[in-house]
Amino acid sequence: MGKEIPSRSEDYSLWYNELVKKADLAEHSDVRGCMVIKPYGYSIWEKMQQALDKMFKDTGHVNAYFPLFVPKSMFEAEEQNAEGFAKECAIVTHYRLKNDPNTKGKLIVDPEAKLEEELVVRPTSEAIIWNTYKKWIQSYRDLPILINQWANVVRWEMRTRLFLRTAEFLWQEGHTAHATADEAVKETIQMLDVYAAFAEAFMAMPVIKGKKSEGEKFPGAVDTYCIEAMMQDGKALQAGTSHFLGQNFANAFNVQFTGKDGKLDYVWGTSWGVSTRLMGALIMAHSDDDGLVLPPKLAPIHVVIVPIFRSDEELTKITLKVDELSAALRKQGLSVKFDNRDTHKPGFKFAEWELKGVPVRLAIGPRDLENGTVEVARRDTKEKQVMKLEEVVAKIPALLEDIQKNIFQKAKSFRDNLITNVDSFDDFKRVLDEKGGFVLAHWDGTKETEVAIKEQTKATIRCIPLDAANEQGACVYSGKPSSRRVLFARAY
Amino acid sequence: MGKEIPSRSEDYSLWYNELVKKADLAEHSDVRGCMVIKPYGYSIWEKMQQALDKMFKDTGHVNAYFPLFVPKSMFEAEEQNAEGFAKECAIVTHYRLKNDPNTKGKLIVDPEAKLEEELVVRPTSEAIIWNTYKKWIQSYRDLPILINQWANVVRWEMRTRLFLRTAEFLWQEGHTAHATADEAVKETIQMLDVYAAFAEAFMAMPVIKGKKSEGEKFPGAVDTYCIEAMMQDGKALQAGTSHFLGQNFANAFNVQFTGKDGKLDYVWGTSWGVSTRLMGALIMAHSDDDGLVLPPKLAPIHVVIVPIFRSDEELTKITLKVDELSAALRKQGLSVKFDNRDTHKPGFKFAEWELKGVPVRLAIGPRDLENGTVEVARRDTKEKQVMKLEEVVAKIPALLEDIQKNIFQKAKSFRDNLITNVDSFDDFKRVLDEKGGFVLAHWDGTKETEVAIKEQTKATIRCIPLDAANEQGACVYSGKPSSRRVLFARAY
Repeated sequence: MGKEIPSRSEDYSLWYNELVKKADLAEHSDVRGCMVIKPYGYSIWEKMQQALDKMFKDTGHVNAYFPLFVPKSMFEAEEQNAEGFAKECAIVTHYRLKNDPNTKGKLIVDPEAKLEEELVVRPTSEAIIWNTYKKWIQSYRDLPILINQWANVVRWEMRTRLFLRTAEFLWQEGHTAHATADEAVKETIQMLDVYAAFAEAFMAMPVIKGKKSEGEKFPGAVDTYCIEAMMQDGKALQAGTSHFLGQNFANAFNVQFTGKDGKLDYVWGTSWGVSTRLMGALIMAHSDDDGLVLPPKLAPIHVVIVPIFRSDEELTKITLKVDELSAALRKQGLSVKFDNRDTHKPGFKFAEWELKGVPVRLAIGPRDLENGTVEVARRDTKEKQVMKLEEVVAKIPALLEDIQKNIFQKAKSFRDNLITNVDSFDDFKRVLDEKGGFVLAHWDGTKETEVAIKEQTKATIRCIPLDAANEQGACVYSGKPSSRRVLFARAY
Repeated sequence: MGKEIPSRSEDYSLWYNELVKKADLAEHSDVRGCMVIKPYGYSIWEKMQQALDKMFKDTGHVNAYFPLFVPKSMFEAEEQNAEGFAKECAIVTHYRLKNDPNTKGKLIVDPEAKLEEELVVRPTSEAIIWNTYKKWIQSYRDLPILINQWANVVRWEMRTRLFLRTAEFLWQEGHTAHATADEAVKETIQMLDVYAAFAEAFMAMPVIKGKKSEGEKFPGAVDTYCIEAMMQDGKALQAGTSHFLGQNFANAFNVQFTGKDGKLDYVWGTSWGVSTRLMGALIMAHSDDDGLVLPPKLAPIHVVIVPIFRSDEELTKITLKVDELSAALRKQGLSVKFDNRDTHKPGFKFAEWELKGVPVRLAIGPRDLENGTVEVARRDTKEKQVMKLEEVVAKIPALLEDIQKNIFQKAKSFRDNLITNVDSFDDFKRVLDEKGGFVLAHWDGTKETEVAIKEQTKATIRCIPLDAANEQGACVYSGKPSSRRVLFARAY
């Protein structure tokens, strides 16, 4: 077949890489660290975009577009932010190539076309956007500003993995401006909730909402909130972040407004983003050794129909029935693919569409035509059933809903089973090594302990869960007092 | 008001710039040559994207995403293309900033983080895409590839204008690969037709389809086709291009396939694109001295409702009626805005929504409530009529259709009136100076004549119209024989 992938237990990392490539989701390009998102992968990303974009608009946001380049002096204005990204920036220094005088047909950078000021390819857009907001905001009447941007960003990562960590990636970044701290905090939490709702309802991926430790927060933020998901290898993945920026960027860019009381104050800000990294999360959360398992709400194809035939005549008869069926399914808003290739056998097609994660497969042969039946297979459980043809159209939407729910429940049971309370550092290390997953443990709240734990276990504080109960305890590492457990894990 | 714009006759160029800014479409950023597309402008672009994306998918195309950066050696592979864009490329040379040892809080480019090979920020993606297609194509079974990409590109323009010419712009670029020249040519023409249909049906902007002269074609193409529109100042604007690439990029990147006959051959290609430049075309094609005139099919807001009230009580009564009306209009798929601000007078609001080009404005006051009427004003003709409230919902969709048609007809009459046949070079110059617009004239087909005419008149060959009749004549410049007229104009 040439399309087989290694099993997860064999080599999880290789399983992931091969799955991404063989399912036609993405591949490495010849440009260092940059990926090509292939049509099938991109169509899943488009579905994510549509759902998120609607959720953003339903919560009052509008889209806009800001420049790709940030002049160095603008980039360095917010020092924390600049320091956080300086080491991984692509820098434009020249604006022209010229013919190489030594080699015909070759080009060299024209030294005379050196920029007076270098341009940073945006790793994130707070700087360029707050520099713009300065011109848009004078009075409380100009607030709030609720803007989102769909864009590409570049962070010069040394070790890259398709979707999970690439030098260039696609994302959305919300950037809002408010008259009060309270309103900005509410916005930060609202967007965290939007992300969590999206992850659970569309990606069928349970997430834990929480706050980052000081050591893990976004450079330039006052507080960073995140949603954390669990992958099948027991490693955590940060799936989205929402930052309360306080007045940091308003201070850096001198963005002030006159309040209702006539007093000048700095504007309060938030920013929040999810990226094509979600593609990696989606793949790793649900897929199995046969390939992708896609939640119906994000599947580019809901139903694939494979004809079982030995002659052109049989195919013609099946096609007549399938055309009718497809039309009826499409009327229900479903995306249907009829795989009528005569170059491949049904078994090959079954494997291919399983690899691509299509939630429901229908198979129809001559005997089905006689009996008025169709074989219905679901991708998530691999269960097959024979259904009456006249019932298919009515039953498929409910089946898809059931698949969506089942995928979520399965991921949730898996994840819940991988949340372990530990009360000693020995247990902490043992659980991480033997079981993996999330470890809920007491922490003394200091950076030193956080760093020491990370150095000794490779586990980081994923978040301080928002729903963490008050509970007196002793830090697993230092023994110092702690008032609630935080969430640790090894992570992507 | 502070929102007034100069008239077109006063200063067309200033009218355009001020309109773009005051209608909240876009503004210059502090990054040289780059614009900020503001939410209202971006929402029009989103409408364009949606319509085009659907047309691309309806003709069998899928979306994908390729890297922003092109390594220099890859960029220079297709020599014509490289030469065409080399002089206007942003070049990434480094991947890290570091603290400036001389000035605290400042960053400098880290000389140790110099790239071995410079990266060109894509001015267009043929190189990176054909370098990828090489891996995807072995056999005729892998063809055709019908891919589109929505992306940002960078061309280092020295003189920029909002939407019309900016260093960074947004666009879509289709890149297709085919087994035969014939199929690729058909694709080229099909996409030209898609662009023309979009321009006329959605933008309400008549266009002339044609082929570029050798001197004006895309670097790396065998043939470039285009759609040409006429702006209100008598200057032409190229609104979209579709290129037949022959085997040029397949040759440059060694992309071969085995045909049905078992023979190896190079793949045939096309590429085609439209950009945020269309925003400039849309604005200049229809707008007037009071502001934007938007065709309903691309208007983010179809209907704005302005209440006429003197007391909160009156506003409350009007609001009740408006809520009902808005809900009924929205049910018809219309976007409705109720401008109930108590900080501005109706006259101010009327002017503001005229500036923003909302196709239909409803005004409702206490007397309307008594009489069961509403004042309906259309943006295109400024006509007002009093309509019975119960008829509004049924009549608005037809009114919007009428506006869409009327805007197109007006632009078409204007454009048709500005197509002049000329038969001498004196007439050629006189028509360009006195009347402007398109000039249809005989041309001897030589580059020398094309260049001479451009130097002496600033007019370029916009295209050789596809529907040009065979007609014997003499070149207006050289007097040499010609077999059909070509389209000249001064252009954006």
